[in-house]
Amino acid sequence: MKVERKVKMAEEFTSEEKTGLYKAIHSRRDVRSHFTSRLIEDEILSKILNAAHHAPSVGFSQPWNFILIKDSQTKARIKESFEKEKESSSQLIEDPKRSKYLSFKLEGILESPVNLCVTYDPSKFGPFVIGRSSIPEAGLYSVCCAIQNLWLAARTEGVGLGWVSILSNDVLKEVLNLPNHVIPVAYLCLGYVDEFATKPDLETAGWLPRLGLKDVIFFEKWEDKENLSWKNIQNIIKTNPDYA
Amino acid sequence: MKVERKVKMAEEFTSEEKTGLYKAIHSRRDVRSHFTSRLIEDEILSKILNAAHHAPSVGFSQPWNFILIKDSQTKARIKESFEKEKESSSQLIEDPKRSKYLSFKLEGILESPVNLCVTYDPSKFGPFVIGRSSIPEAGLYSVCCAIQNLWLAARTEGVGLGWVSILSNDVLKEVLNLPNHVIPVAYLCLGYVDEFATKPDLETAGWLPRLGLKDVIFFEKWEDKENLSWKNIQNIIKTNPDYA
Repeated sequence: MKVERKVKMAEEFTSEEKTGLYKAIHSRRDVRSHFTSRLIEDEILSKILNAAHHAPSVGFSQPWNFILIKDSQTKARIKESFEKEKESSSQLIEDPKRSKYLSFKLEGILESPVNLCVTYDPSKFGPFVIGRSSIPEAGLYSVCCAIQNLWLAARTEGVGLGWVSILSNDVLKEVLNLPNHVIPVAYLCLGYVDEFATKPDLETAGWLPRLGLKDVIFFEKWEDKENLSWKNIQNIIKTNPDYA
Repeated sequence: MKVERKVKMAEEFTSEEKTGLYKAIHSRRDVRSHFTSRLIEDEILSKILNAAHHAPSVGFSQPWNFILIKDSQTKARIKESFEKEKESSSQLIEDPKRSKYLSFKLEGILESPVNLCVTYDPSKFGPFVIGRSSIPEAGLYSVCCAIQNLWLAARTEGVGLGWVSILSNDVLKEVLNLPNHVIPVAYLCLGYVDEFATKPDLETAGWLPRLGLKDVIFFEKWEDKENLSWKNIQNIIKTNPDYA
């Protein structure tokens, strides 16, 4: 009986269903251009938002809210905040890096049909939330999991998503009337695109290289890459070309 | 040409592949029990970790590290921290809630074959990271996106994952030798399970209800649920039973 159950579990996702998940993960991109004029159907938008709402949340607190935006005045104010923050952050680096940074297209606020602000409300179902007493940030982490669900669901629907983190949260709070205790976590731009790049733009531009899987995994302790109990997986991540 | 391209995009995921993604999202659970003795194959573990490593990251900073743990002494010390934090957090509430909280099974540290600490290293590729100057937390958010990728990939492989946030990050840092500047984001328990619950445990236990999709979506501004520009989607999320 137990063995049958295990077999059932292993078979629960078909090979093509598994492919769907991995394809979404590996072909998902942060999209800043290539938005088309096609509107996102409300049925698709609902489905994507529902995927976000089914993320894990600490103590089942579901602390997220989603503010859908298409008002052009709101978009213009956010775009203005982006421009200001991009300029001021560019002062932190020097040429030639600065010019390169300033030349990058880093948002699609006006071109994308839907903007979306995802917020964290720590007061929801609070103040006591299971799992949030020792690590208060766990509530914020839940919201990020929701964003990643949303991103992957959008990808399978052919909808591009770009996360704009070059802006002022104070401006965002004012423009969207957020109460003081609510934290804007992400400002996203969504729309159908006529292309998903095969690699992240910043990788293509030579800004930073992709790390190999072996560069980000340790065993038992920080920076231990050679622990003898994990020889086989060390060998896999070092030699399998998929993980280079 | 443009139309052909759009059609291509829309068709890029087969219906079964899309199903795979949504099935992973909707059947993913925070697993604290039902772990079997079956070990996770190193090939599967690598694949799951690679899914995490292909998450979006602010400025392509890839600021995550993954510390794989199976050492029983390490596990025992983390379990001890869990017990202590659970007890002290229970002091924040009163009976009958307190007894109920204490009765919940909230982790599978010792029963799961693999524990995994996911960390955030803000110094990686820093100090200037594109998109992290105005909102420094964006680096932390990237790590959470990686965790959600990992969670979904694990689900498609039949591997259960439980996130333990009832523990002391100071203990975690000491036990795993984390440098001062590195932030532990998640402590995860992974292993094959003989069951994925159909609903979150805390929902089943009646601790908190699941919110409807309509309860978490606003239009244009905080708390605006009736904005006239969004009538159609308001109707969908209010009436479609999938979103109740």
